[in-house]
Amino acid sequence: MNVRISQISSSVGEQVTIAGWLYNKRSSGKIVFLELRDGSGFLQAIVSKSEVSEETWAAAESLTQESSLKVTGTIVAHPKKEGVFELQVANIEVVHIAAEYPIALKEHGPDFLLDKRHLWLRSKRQWAIQRVRDCVIDAIYDFFHQNDYVKVDTPIFTPNACEGATELFSVEYLDEGEVFLSQSGQLYLEAAIMSVGRGFDFGPVFRAEKSKTRKHLTEFWMMDAEGAFIEHEENMEQQEALIKHIAKKCLENCATDLALLERDVEPLKKMLELSFEKLTYTEAIEKLHTLGSEITFGDDLGTEDEELLTKDSPVPVFIHKWPKAIKPFYMKQDPENPDLVLNNDLIGMENAGEIIGGSQREDDYEKMNAAIIKEGLEGPEYEWYLDLRKYGSVPHSGYGLGLERVVRWMSGAHHIRETIPFPRIINRVKP
Amino acid sequence: MNVRISQISSSVGEQVTIAGWLYNKRSSGKIVFLELRDGSGFLQAIVSKSEVSEETWAAAESLTQESSLKVTGTIVAHPKKEGVFELQVANIEVVHIAAEYPIALKEHGPDFLLDKRHLWLRSKRQWAIQRVRDCVIDAIYDFFHQNDYVKVDTPIFTPNACEGATELFSVEYLDEGEVFLSQSGQLYLEAAIMSVGRGFDFGPVFRAEKSKTRKHLTEFWMMDAEGAFIEHEENMEQQEALIKHIAKKCLENCATDLALLERDVEPLKKMLELSFEKLTYTEAIEKLHTLGSEITFGDDLGTEDEELLTKDSPVPVFIHKWPKAIKPFYMKQDPENPDLVLNNDLIGMENAGEIIGGSQREDDYEKMNAAIIKEGLEGPEYEWYLDLRKYGSVPHSGYGLGLERVVRWMSGAHHIRETIPFPRIINRVKP
Repeated sequence: MNVRISQISSSVGEQVTIAGWLYNKRSSGKIVFLELRDGSGFLQAIVSKSEVSEETWAAAESLTQESSLKVTGTIVAHPKKEGVFELQVANIEVVHIAAEYPIALKEHGPDFLLDKRHLWLRSKRQWAIQRVRDCVIDAIYDFFHQNDYVKVDTPIFTPNACEGATELFSVEYLDEGEVFLSQSGQLYLEAAIMSVGRGFDFGPVFRAEKSKTRKHLTEFWMMDAEGAFIEHEENMEQQEALIKHIAKKCLENCATDLALLERDVEPLKKMLELSFEKLTYTEAIEKLHTLGSEITFGDDLGTEDEELLTKDSPVPVFIHKWPKAIKPFYMKQDPENPDLVLNNDLIGMENAGEIIGGSQREDDYEKMNAAIIKEGLEGPEYEWYLDLRKYGSVPHSGYGLGLERVVRWMSGAHHIRETIPFPRIINRVKP
Repeated sequence: MNVRISQISSSVGEQVTIAGWLYNKRSSGKIVFLELRDGSGFLQAIVSKSEVSEETWAAAESLTQESSLKVTGTIVAHPKKEGVFELQVANIEVVHIAAEYPIALKEHGPDFLLDKRHLWLRSKRQWAIQRVRDCVIDAIYDFFHQNDYVKVDTPIFTPNACEGATELFSVEYLDEGEVFLSQSGQLYLEAAIMSVGRGFDFGPVFRAEKSKTRKHLTEFWMMDAEGAFIEHEENMEQQEALIKHIAKKCLENCATDLALLERDVEPLKKMLELSFEKLTYTEAIEKLHTLGSEITFGDDLGTEDEELLTKDSPVPVFIHKWPKAIKPFYMKQDPENPDLVLNNDLIGMENAGEIIGGSQREDDYEKMNAAIIKEGLEGPEYEWYLDLRKYGSVPHSGYGLGLERVVRWMSGAHHIRETIPFPRIINRVKP
């Protein structure tokens, strides 16, 4: 019977065949220990010279790192470790003997590993991180379908520049001239929810980002959500529910992966029982001053400020109602203070940084029109966006979540480039 | 209590508030019938002059098409139509009176509607098509998670040209020179499954397509699946299972939408009970000849050939084992006939056209290397792809599904441009 390693606990005592690769090998004279992987997990297979044919013994000896094979044997419980199983090998069929593998099971430099990303993905940590990523993606779909949201795929090719015209990649579009690669689907999602009521998108976005930090990619995945008749406070409630849903699902479905990554899961477990902290921007600045920061009211928060505000916090921190002057034109003015907007950032604890940015959107035609003019964006390109305030405008809010930042946080990966299968950064666009 | 229209069947007899838009209005003296929509459904609300305040009556009279509003009233069963409910209005709160709406509830030309796509999405058919799209997306995630596949996001920026270098959009990538927008994630997915065993991607792909047909977009969504140790026959079995899963889920979850679209669901129901037809390419050519086609062995199938082969078929048709000469370099040679490859197209019935293309991939290093050289693709760009045949090569197969084509088929939409929220075609990249 062909089984995957993830399923072996239900095959104890049975003879099974596992198809996969050799991850590692140890030998002690008359026994060879093969560490197998098949994509669903890792398993130790034990080959005893006295119990297998000469061919199988020779095969076991010939196997190099990353060779592919089919191994038949009996699943047995590990004599000492509960919940761990092993394979007593009866037969080995070699599929392909790997040439000398360039990635040894030791440390390599980041450039070398990125050059070999197509192979590096096979190493245990990278494999586990991709599985956590899959789990986060799944949790996001779950959450939005449970909450009656419709997936709306917003376009990549766009004549508009959502967050201002800097850092855009441009493309020559057939005979239509220059267009840009989307940095956010938000504006389009705003149009779509006037049809479907509640919508989310989830796809790649692009930023011609010349920063070379641990947190930046030029191509990354973004999830935007938007809801009609949802206002500022409810918008934040939903963000909290989403993050908790993601963490819960990772804890439930990725326990093995998180253990392999040596991710201490206690902080995530604790977070699930608590409410997230909420600070207005004004309160955040005051708090930063008491913590010794020299930030000025009206400045954006830097990474260090975010770290200061969440240091020792058992929960993520909302920082909301920012100065209008430093925020994008589409955010709704705070009715209680015209210098502020009804927006929020959500800063993860454990130095996760900003993982969500959201806001209620300006729904008044005149205010939006004035904001567009002030930004120098007037003209045909934003007319359709203004139309949304002309034909049955409604209060609405939304937010965007950066997938890789959340995966980095959940998995405990050090660098964001590990959280995406094929990272694109300032000086790298291959393999 | 705030409810969404999709939930009203559980609130019969109760007083509820619905927030949404006015889709249509009829008046007969002392009664106004409001057709409401809230993104989750449509509902008739009845305003009787004798039962509401003067303010509410005036509000009902003032409402224009697409005005936004909150309506409070009692849910009652329709006197004649089972399963249909209405709202007996007690109060109306106008949120925003829409300016004169450019899209009347009558026919408009396609160019006008595409110019107003941000509003056109609100019309009933377009709304229903987007919901079917959401359902197809959801079904795809379902299927792959049930089958233990990991989502692997393949890159958009790529130095490689998967299906040959024609029809590629190019981008100037910071200081790294020209890169291309992906047409398929397949090659990257092949690398990833050597780590995760079974993987799928699902994202936008790009084709600088100058065809202006009912079936072409320059930006569309593609799902690629790939599995280690999966061979040609199993690959086709899985495609059949996937299509059936999608159809089943649409029938179950989108019954209202399909009814609204006047999509006859009997062919889909019948399909679920039958096995898909399988023809080799050779058999297909013979069959086409008996049907009067003048196609020559070695030619690609045109739309007319596809239609001929599936006319009157109650199931989709696999056409497999095509001539190697007209297929991409990465497909595996048929061991029984070196002139053929182990590939398949899957042609939907009901003139759905080609909805899946798949193949077993060449896993032999020497053959792959020769194919790359023959294609003129040798050099550093495909080295990583060759590496997959150097380090533990395994038999593997996969396929790609075009989302919009499947949505068009399931929904019965006439033109592919209706199946994507913001279509990009040869001469259109806005709004």
